[in-house]
Amino acid sequence: MSTHPVVDLPVPLLISPEGGIEGRSRRYEKFLGDMAGVYHDEAAWQASVAARGADELIYWVDDHRYQDGVDGPGALIIGTSTLLPGRYGSEFAVTRGHLHAIADRAELYYCLSGRGVMLLETIDGQSEAVELTPGKAVNVPGHWIHRSVNTGDEPFVTLFCYAADAGQDYALIADAGGMKSLVVADGDGDGWKLTPNPDHTGYRPS
Amino acid sequence: MSTHPVVDLPVPLLISPEGGIEGRSRRYEKFLGDMAGVYHDEAAWQASVAARGADELIYWVDDHRYQDGVDGPGALIIGTSTLLPGRYGSEFAVTRGHLHAIADRAELYYCLSGRGVMLLETIDGQSEAVELTPGKAVNVPGHWIHRSVNTGDEPFVTLFCYAADAGQDYALIADAGGMKSLVVADGDGDGWKLTPNPDHTGYRPS
Repeated sequence: MSTHPVVDLPVPLLISPEGGIEGRSRRYEKFLGDMAGVYHDEAAWQASVAARGADELIYWVDDHRYQDGVDGPGALIIGTSTLLPGRYGSEFAVTRGHLHAIADRAELYYCLSGRGVMLLETIDGQSEAVELTPGKAVNVPGHWIHRSVNTGDEPFVTLFCYAADAGQDYALIADAGGMKSLVVADGDGDGWKLTPNPDHTGYRPS
Repeated sequence: MSTHPVVDLPVPLLISPEGGIEGRSRRYEKFLGDMAGVYHDEAAWQASVAARGADELIYWVDDHRYQDGVDGPGALIIGTSTLLPGRYGSEFAVTRGHLHAIADRAELYYCLSGRGVMLLETIDGQSEAVELTPGKAVNVPGHWIHRSVNTGDEPFVTLFCYAADAGQDYALIADAGGMKSLVVADGDGDGWKLTPNPDHTGYRPS
């Protein structure tokens, strides 16, 4: 008799276009006070904390994964990211951003609602921005640092999918003084452009 | 000076709720004549071929992948699957189905439009069905053979995402006389149920 691996039972997931997954494994939330050092205009962020409170929710993530290790290294994490709108000086609201700890791991982002940009950079200084509105997606290649940016005035919601073993390196961006480019307002309304971040010191791979 | 991997440039993808990707790497199509041996009711399939022609399109897939190997083993394939409605005797239209050649590789299916079922089976005889309508998804765990089934009367469209190294084993199902369960009509309208496939001889892992 052959032996078979223990497997997880597939479960239905219900994904809201406003973000959130019925059937999720976990939810995590980030608050205004968690974003120290993220925005170039530190005074603008401080003023927001004073006005709105450090406990104000700014983004939240639901995700689904099977029990670690049960279904082997090929497992995927599926989730929704909901980034609320905001401005800190001229800079739009962002997630912290990361490079995968296993750097070659790609990631799908598919826009469910709202309007935003996926800001992408490489260790050696390439910078790209992909605009996302409902129905648009980006297959983030391996080796690209990436961050969501909400350039609209509604929550920016994406469905994501990546290898469960990928992990996240958040320190890389902090250690470089932030990402190389900033996504800032350009004119009135939803206009945006990239500008160089004067605090950026270059990435130092760990 | 440190060396960095050659990376692919991220590109925008536009995903249609009716299926199809602007920015795709490829499209492949399956026709009625390609489905010999797939349906339990061989006579019903033969009658369909006679009536509609072997060249009638029955499903098509667009997908996006970066250039093979450039971004490492962590690459993802993102695509849409569009399965047209149909009935062969009491059995609903299906895709061929597969186990990943690297069996532990999971796969996301997220329903964009239509109505269907993801039929899932393990080598050792477990059988599950997950109903999919727009907004519903399933994170297909590793080690599950899976097939899309259109239980509605419109195209059944899913967005999928899986590891580029996963591969597909299609012969496993054919060699077993088809999947263990059939998805058949249950009453009028969109009702469906699982019934045992009398042709199924058990899976023989290669």
